[in-house]
Amino acid sequence: MKLSLPAQSILLPSPVLIIGTYGSDGRPNIMTAAWGGITSSKPPCISVSLREATLSYHNIKETKAFTVNIPSEKYYKEADYIGMVSGREHDKFKETGLTPEKSKQVNAPFVKEFPYALECKLKKQVDLGMHTMFIGEIAGMVADNNVLNPKQLPDIEKVRPILWGSFGSMGYYNIGDKLGDAFSVGNELQRSKNKKSV
Amino acid sequence: MKLSLPAQSILLPSPVLIIGTYGSDGRPNIMTAAWGGITSSKPPCISVSLREATLSYHNIKETKAFTVNIPSEKYYKEADYIGMVSGREHDKFKETGLTPEKSKQVNAPFVKEFPYALECKLKKQVDLGMHTMFIGEIAGMVADNNVLNPKQLPDIEKVRPILWGSFGSMGYYNIGDKLGDAFSVGNELQRSKNKKSV
Repeated sequence: MKLSLPAQSILLPSPVLIIGTYGSDGRPNIMTAAWGGITSSKPPCISVSLREATLSYHNIKETKAFTVNIPSEKYYKEADYIGMVSGREHDKFKETGLTPEKSKQVNAPFVKEFPYALECKLKKQVDLGMHTMFIGEIAGMVADNNVLNPKQLPDIEKVRPILWGSFGSMGYYNIGDKLGDAFSVGNELQRSKNKKSV
Repeated sequence: MKLSLPAQSILLPSPVLIIGTYGSDGRPNIMTAAWGGITSSKPPCISVSLREATLSYHNIKETKAFTVNIPSEKYYKEADYIGMVSGREHDKFKETGLTPEKSKQVNAPFVKEFPYALECKLKKQVDLGMHTMFIGEIAGMVADNNVLNPKQLPDIEKVRPILWGSFGSMGYYNIGDKLGDAFSVGNELQRSKNKKSV
């Protein structure tokens, strides 16, 4: 039975994004965000939406830069903690034992222990209400060599990212099994439909 | 070893979004998109980025509305097919055997067979280059009653959404195991750090 329900900002799955920034005093900070996604291929862009109450919001406004770090599943407790406390009162790098490294592409730190990060220059800001969307142009990427495929692209089976189940479960998940190849398995459907119509 | 690599629009995981629209002639269409994400909580908003070459781009410009449908994993072949052909030459509902139902909230169809959909009114359009980002304000949600938790929210373990592994794997995946509870497991880290420092 299909139900009509109130509006909810529930996308499944939602990503777990660790946003790296510097303050105007050069202090590195990280926060966890789930509101974001790729917004363009050329130029490559990604958006992340933050509340004005966060330190990261003000850091991005000042430095015009941020990194989007993808934690592997073994860091799910760190990812949760980084989303629970504010960089105003906590040194989250120190408290989690994670290491900030300065990006060579943009004025922001990335997390050394995480498998890869996108290095972003602020391109546009869109105020939407409770959240402000920061659209970053991806200037480069840093990645551990052991999570790359032969084309030097991050392989999801090696990165082992975390998913967030949003408000309906409030849980973190890992990836499961491969279902099939994109731009390929759809052909099987077409063939089976054609067979039926013969 | 950490490598510096060229910019890539690779977010892991990326969602599999089936975008539902009507043409100016009232014909329902669906397309598959991976560039999108939640952009705000209040008002609840979601963005999806489309190329001008797509029929859906023009449908959204005309109707100012779209749905974001989340397919369950058993529909991975359908999701792939819907992303492989254009609604200009194909009736993708008919060819996949999926059923369009008119949203009561917005001027767009949702996919009856999929576990839930967000019903969106176009709020803002941001041109970014190859892709245009359409930000929709979520006006309502339709969901199968058997994928909801007791609070009437879609439960990821019942929805069983599809993930896309992006360019590094070009594969579809399902969700795996629950790692832990959000806004909770981070406390364990804090306790263990505190213990160490005693």
